[in-house]
Amino acid sequence: MTTVTNGVNVQALLDAREVLKGAPEAAQFTWRASATWQHGVHSQIKVQSYYGLGEEHDHKEESVFEADHPDVFAATDNGITPIEYLLVGLASCLSAGVASVAENRGIQLNSVQATVEGHHDIRGILGADGDVRNGYNDIKVTFNIDADASREDIEALVAQSQKRSAVFDALTNPTDVTVEVA
Amino acid sequence: MTTVTNGVNVQALLDAREVLKGAPEAAQFTWRASATWQHGVHSQIKVQSYYGLGEEHDHKEESVFEADHPDVFAATDNGITPIEYLLVGLASCLSAGVASVAENRGIQLNSVQATVEGHHDIRGILGADGDVRNGYNDIKVTFNIDADASREDIEALVAQSQKRSAVFDALTNPTDVTVEVA
Repeated sequence: MTTVTNGVNVQALLDAREVLKGAPEAAQFTWRASATWQHGVHSQIKVQSYYGLGEEHDHKEESVFEADHPDVFAATDNGITPIEYLLVGLASCLSAGVASVAENRGIQLNSVQATVEGHHDIRGILGADGDVRNGYNDIKVTFNIDADASREDIEALVAQSQKRSAVFDALTNPTDVTVEVA
Repeated sequence: MTTVTNGVNVQALLDAREVLKGAPEAAQFTWRASATWQHGVHSQIKVQSYYGLGEEHDHKEESVFEADHPDVFAATDNGITPIEYLLVGLASCLSAGVASVAENRGIQLNSVQATVEGHHDIRGILGADGDVRNGYNDIKVTFNIDADASREDIEALVAQSQKRSAVFDALTNPTDVTVEVA
């Protein structure tokens, strides 16, 4: 295997896999976000703390995001729409997976770009047609990858990335979400 | 009904609902994101253009996001993890819904905060246990709402927001996601 420099510490991940096999409680992570309503449908969302490996952690910086609806929804467009954040997560999760799998397989990546399109019939959220769902009808991801590998090997990277992707799973399979008033 | 000033143009949304009932093709939106791999598992994601009402549009500004893995995954923590973006979307979508429904019901909001926690067993993504899923096990959303309304009315706002939420639907129900190499 050639030494590649995609920058992913694969050995640490392989070591973590072995350690967590015998310590399932350390593998329980809690990720968090907190939204504060601003005005109209504009909210500001902050992310910093998370729990894992049995203790609290902080990302090195707090991240702050704006979400709003666009002009065409008669809103102020102070940030992307909430549903677009799902595409941000999907594109980045699959890209991280491609880099990790490539590192593990000794494939040098030169460039990776993932373009995601989500098709959304807004009659659902508007209540215009009860047979139309609120979320995406379907999502399409297209990768453009330049790597020192055959097309077949590149396609295999993408397939393995999907197989281990947290966000791909979260969008293609149902998750229990409970919502309550404090 | 009291005139409230939550800032949501409910009349425009009600009008859009009526218009789109007779023009389903105009209701077909495409939202987009594009991720460019940086190094390691760090990628940068850009969002600006979208399609809807039969034509191309741009958000008034391009939004740029960073996604990475944290220190505890032996990564560079240059941004939140991809799976945290799902919580950003969920928190903001439900908050937008609360504001819209409150406006429609004549309820003045004073403050709205949504805290979201996603429980994630990372043995899935690490391949440490084939019975553990890659995504969230479950997600919990807690609202703190100060409004000129009874607790019962506030709970009803939150329930209606869930019922019309694009992101709530996208996370609780499966969506077809196709991934291909260009």
